[in-house]
Amino acid sequence: MIINSNLKKLSKTYLFTQVTEKVENYKKLNPGVKLINLGVGDYTLPLCDAVVKKLREAVNNLSKKETFRGYGPEEGYLFLRESVKKYYKTKGVDLDTDEIFISDGANSDIGNVLELFSKDNPVLIPDPVYPAYVDANIIHGRKIEYLNATQENNFLPGIPKDEVKSRIIYICSPNNPTGATYNYSQLKAFVDYALETGSVIMFDAAYESFIKDQNLPSSIFSIEGAKKCAIEICSFSKIAGFTGVRCGYTVIPEEMVYEDSNMNKIYKRRLAARFNGVSYISQMGANAVFSREGTEQVNENLDYFRKNAKILSSVFEKKGIFYTGAKNSPYIWFKCPSGMSSWDFFDYLLEKFNIVGTPGVGFGKNGENFFRLSSFGTLEETELATEKLLKL
Amino acid sequence: MIINSNLKKLSKTYLFTQVTEKVENYKKLNPGVKLINLGVGDYTLPLCDAVVKKLREAVNNLSKKETFRGYGPEEGYLFLRESVKKYYKTKGVDLDTDEIFISDGANSDIGNVLELFSKDNPVLIPDPVYPAYVDANIIHGRKIEYLNATQENNFLPGIPKDEVKSRIIYICSPNNPTGATYNYSQLKAFVDYALETGSVIMFDAAYESFIKDQNLPSSIFSIEGAKKCAIEICSFSKIAGFTGVRCGYTVIPEEMVYEDSNMNKIYKRRLAARFNGVSYISQMGANAVFSREGTEQVNENLDYFRKNAKILSSVFEKKGIFYTGAKNSPYIWFKCPSGMSSWDFFDYLLEKFNIVGTPGVGFGKNGENFFRLSSFGTLEETELATEKLLKL
Repeated sequence: MIINSNLKKLSKTYLFTQVTEKVENYKKLNPGVKLINLGVGDYTLPLCDAVVKKLREAVNNLSKKETFRGYGPEEGYLFLRESVKKYYKTKGVDLDTDEIFISDGANSDIGNVLELFSKDNPVLIPDPVYPAYVDANIIHGRKIEYLNATQENNFLPGIPKDEVKSRIIYICSPNNPTGATYNYSQLKAFVDYALETGSVIMFDAAYESFIKDQNLPSSIFSIEGAKKCAIEICSFSKIAGFTGVRCGYTVIPEEMVYEDSNMNKIYKRRLAARFNGVSYISQMGANAVFSREGTEQVNENLDYFRKNAKILSSVFEKKGIFYTGAKNSPYIWFKCPSGMSSWDFFDYLLEKFNIVGTPGVGFGKNGENFFRLSSFGTLEETELATEKLLKL
Repeated sequence: MIINSNLKKLSKTYLFTQVTEKVENYKKLNPGVKLINLGVGDYTLPLCDAVVKKLREAVNNLSKKETFRGYGPEEGYLFLRESVKKYYKTKGVDLDTDEIFISDGANSDIGNVLELFSKDNPVLIPDPVYPAYVDANIIHGRKIEYLNATQENNFLPGIPKDEVKSRIIYICSPNNPTGATYNYSQLKAFVDYALETGSVIMFDAAYESFIKDQNLPSSIFSIEGAKKCAIEICSFSKIAGFTGVRCGYTVIPEEMVYEDSNMNKIYKRRLAARFNGVSYISQMGANAVFSREGTEQVNENLDYFRKNAKILSSVFEKKGIFYTGAKNSPYIWFKCPSGMSSWDFFDYLLEKFNIVGTPGVGFGKNGENFFRLSSFGTLEETELATEKLLKL
């Protein structure tokens, strides 16, 4: 048996696995110490009432013969695709329900949609960025090129200036980990570049719900021409705390045609063979996010985390430390003090202040000397962490 | 952009999509006609009480701050892996919890585990068989060879007699669509062959819960040596009606080593990058399947379908028509009468008796002139269908 040799090229441990191991080790050596976790981007607030109500209704339906449902459509229930369509309408984007595919989360679909494209396309990935992009492409054996995000470009790199060629271009805006968010003209440059070169943009919009600034696009499809060259991947994790419930959606526009093939139709065919759909219960819960009641409750939660982000960022404002994010993102990305390396600062924060964050270098080489804090903790923890950080 | 040209090699429509389209068309032309659906292998009984109780508890936990859970372990919660381990123990198979990966269903993992192995390994797939195996391998661009299952070998083909080489070998037992089930010595021949040639066996055990006959193995790991060469893929869909809830599990033994690489460890690393785990709610429900209460209730449901299978098979017993399955499987696989083609018989059943079944040829060329009926309908429908079929 010949194994997939690409798997050997993956870094030995995944960033978040590595962080967890370090933390578990620290806990073992320091029993009783209470840690403030501002590391992974995981929710701490419970699901909102509107969602819980619908989850209960779904379980109830499955408990009775008359309302039991087995296999659902692999592309997701129409009721949820209708709601996503309406949500996009509020952003000024017209979608057809056939263009929306319900997924079990952004992470899975980041890799799944790659099956549409040949291994021979080079991939352009911002550095630093969410490590799953790189890993999914390493597993498939694609050649990876990086787009350097640095302090100089405010962690918002522009279109590549090197050789013009067709590639798979990843964009994550608001960015994970930097929180930096592209404006309309910056995204337009990418769409124009993709149209010109026959590239495809993989737009990760997982954090779109954190955008408050009306001058920032929360969907790539707000940009003219994007429907011909972009796939948008989104999730209910960050808008509504679905990290454990698992539901997301991916938009592949009907207008996207490469080599005379309609990518939407091809993806639908792939899905029929490779997926049996997302849990009916999760889809029912996700649908409640778009109800009037759900939207209100979800926004209350988002405001809670936005407040945390503001509190955390005050540290860096006061200290005059360079940072990005916090405004339209749950993340604060900042330069480690005194030129410390990311992992040294991780250890320092853990040992000195009992705060768990995420070392920037874990997201790529340009993340070295940077650090990510998340606003997904509780208000109390965030305030406590802020007090401590002010003593830096 | 170069697209994945393998996608163009997929059959235009997926079997079950094609059946659904034909049925929808018939309904449109014949409004008011009530159809008996013995087509897809989908549950019709509601979830059992023990499962519903745990699903409710899970939703409740997510509704409160103290018990809310976000991201779970990508390999699944330990509580569920412990239960699966105990379940295997009752079959006489010792597993470690680290060898068990919770999935969102067998269908997804049939493709996912393929990422472990190079595209250069040929694949051996029984014909006829569940079409997802073929499609997943076409998408990945593997060379597919077929193992002919025919009336002559009772649809249980033995090890290949041609050139000895290392391959990815699919086995589905009890088989979908034929219901034929391998015995110990037949499976041992496959394990010996795999060990000798360095092949890997992908053992689809989705229907293991239907095995009543103690002389038939319900896990490949009941065969000595299998832990060195087999991956087992299973699901809660058929044991407990999770077709809409989505949960399954995949076993990759620690002993499986190819090219000095531990496949279990490599899969765990892949999973960290590519998956964020199965819904906590679904996992809680799945765990209830293994409780004393759950086991009892699940077995009652299985008996209900077993009875249906027996009733259906009586038609073919009485008429002396060749069939397989029904005994340790929810499917009855039989020869179409009067040498009719599978699709002609599909149309005939639909139009004459208003019964929906699945044409055998949809599962592979050797399925031509054969037909699959499922016992997952209601008792009333099954009895009505039986009456009608006796008039064949």
